[in-house]
Amino acid sequence: MKSRPVIGLTLGDPAGIGPELCLQALREPLVLAQCVPVVFGDSTILKQVSEVTGLASDYQVLALDEWGDAGVVNVPALVDCVAIQPESVRPGAASAGCGQAAFAYIKHAVHAAQLGRIAGVVTAPIHKEALRAAGVPYPGHTEIFAALTGARRTCMMLRSEVLTISLVTTHVGYAEVPQQLSVERVLEVIELTAEALHRMLRRAPRLGVCGLNPHAGEHGLFGQREEERFLEPALAQARDNGLRVEGPLPSDSAFIPAMRNRFDALVCLYHDQGHIPFKLLAFDSGVNLTLGLPIIRTSVDHGTAFDIAWQGVADPRSLFAAIRVAVELACGGEEAPARP
Amino acid sequence: MKSRPVIGLTLGDPAGIGPELCLQALREPLVLAQCVPVVFGDSTILKQVSEVTGLASDYQVLALDEWGDAGVVNVPALVDCVAIQPESVRPGAASAGCGQAAFAYIKHAVHAAQLGRIAGVVTAPIHKEALRAAGVPYPGHTEIFAALTGARRTCMMLRSEVLTISLVTTHVGYAEVPQQLSVERVLEVIELTAEALHRMLRRAPRLGVCGLNPHAGEHGLFGQREEERFLEPALAQARDNGLRVEGPLPSDSAFIPAMRNRFDALVCLYHDQGHIPFKLLAFDSGVNLTLGLPIIRTSVDHGTAFDIAWQGVADPRSLFAAIRVAVELACGGEEAPARP
Repeated sequence: MKSRPVIGLTLGDPAGIGPELCLQALREPLVLAQCVPVVFGDSTILKQVSEVTGLASDYQVLALDEWGDAGVVNVPALVDCVAIQPESVRPGAASAGCGQAAFAYIKHAVHAAQLGRIAGVVTAPIHKEALRAAGVPYPGHTEIFAALTGARRTCMMLRSEVLTISLVTTHVGYAEVPQQLSVERVLEVIELTAEALHRMLRRAPRLGVCGLNPHAGEHGLFGQREEERFLEPALAQARDNGLRVEGPLPSDSAFIPAMRNRFDALVCLYHDQGHIPFKLLAFDSGVNLTLGLPIIRTSVDHGTAFDIAWQGVADPRSLFAAIRVAVELACGGEEAPARP
Repeated sequence: MKSRPVIGLTLGDPAGIGPELCLQALREPLVLAQCVPVVFGDSTILKQVSEVTGLASDYQVLALDEWGDAGVVNVPALVDCVAIQPESVRPGAASAGCGQAAFAYIKHAVHAAQLGRIAGVVTAPIHKEALRAAGVPYPGHTEIFAALTGARRTCMMLRSEVLTISLVTTHVGYAEVPQQLSVERVLEVIELTAEALHRMLRRAPRLGVCGLNPHAGEHGLFGQREEERFLEPALAQARDNGLRVEGPLPSDSAFIPAMRNRFDALVCLYHDQGHIPFKLLAFDSGVNLTLGLPIIRTSVDHGTAFDIAWQGVADPRSLFAAIRVAVELACGGEEAPARP
């Protein structure tokens, strides 16, 4: 058997569906054929969730301060971060303790990736209110990874079989979006998107960029000419740099099949412009990527699902897809095992 | 045969696909079984488009200043508005002359509806730049109908088999949306939506209202608390008034089947929040309604399609659906002929 990359999985918020998803990944043949999964979490939490849900997995428990010296990991494993005790976790409830633990798992996984001990990090869902209660000053994974790795240019990408989008702005209020637009930022996201897709597809990708206003402003009829001020100069510069990119596209028609199928990805300007069509088209199978980091990071495209946490009914398909995309990126596309 | 309502169709922009769609409606058995279609347009334009496209229809030509005296119309007809000559129309090109003609057809149809000569108006697409070139001071049909009828409370609804939405704001720039929100306006759109659906469904409808910010603000994490300031008070008032309404809903998940199927309609705050999912789910079959008018008005949910105008290939399904919804509203739901 050829060498498989070691992929780190963070447990996510202990009170959510992250632990049971990790249990499923640790025993899924499709996952084990692609990589060696190593979960960053608490062994006591994983054990308790296994007992409560009946999901049994075989994995090795490694001590946090020793596992790096133990040589290459080649069986499914858990790196025991000892961040929280099961007694203090109420399944389905946001708490500062859980937010702190989820943050600790991420920090340890990022550190391991920076040291090259793992080839990439795949994250299970965290809970924003728990993070905030824990005093973590970031609204989500994307911002945490950017801060921990010191990355200056990052953006979020959502990828699925039917639609891939990347986002110029993400977790900011609706009214703050226009002031966060700039030629530089739009160009940056176009470039990050093109780079990531080139790596995955091994050819020059075709990109589309959505407008901000109704009908992309309809030649100045609507809006403050954001399309002319921020998008058209960025598009012109990207084309000068050799990228294949079109826009600004009216966003209400950009996602219908006849339009979206012309592009490998659509660059969206704000959260719901991208997330509304993505969730409609790829609800269960989406993968969330952070582009521009010095390490590989992918994630499930759903939340902690507190309403069904610790019940063993959570759907692991998005986590499996996220692991697959991380392996694709780690192996430069070429080495990834074929899809079943 | 029981009495069918007379439904007025406006020809739309003469340089677009409106004329050929009207030709198809005038001879479509499904349409003729539901109503007597009367087109407001130019007989010379319709004749020329018929010759160019090969679409032949039988209809009576009525003079604008005489047709009201001729008694009840009971065969397909065209009211000759004599607003433009075919020689001055270049198919697929926006012009002031076409904008002026399209506006004239609407004015005559609205007038006929106000006099009770027609039971409702169904509009073919107009072109915003042509309207603007003609000096018409409105961005679209919704605003024209509101102005011509003196309606104070109106909103746009998009209706299809799979999704119905109504819009708090429509053709305004992205950045202007937050300042156009108010408790009164949100409540108004909830009420107009509930009234129209009650009439069509003959039961109390269930409504959902989308939030403005990512994740509907996530309890104040994102945005300027627009959800708390404008939406929650409007929702509370609507419930006090006996309406069944939920929200604010995170708009990225509001449109997935498990959510949208709980509601008869979703109230959206801005153009693309509603139009992105609507076009994805009901691209060819959508109907656009203006609610709150003293007359019935429905419309196709597509544009003038200048790229295929006068070629006889335009898809008439959206126009047929718009006619059907107008008949449903005219007959209070109960009297409308059954679907085939």
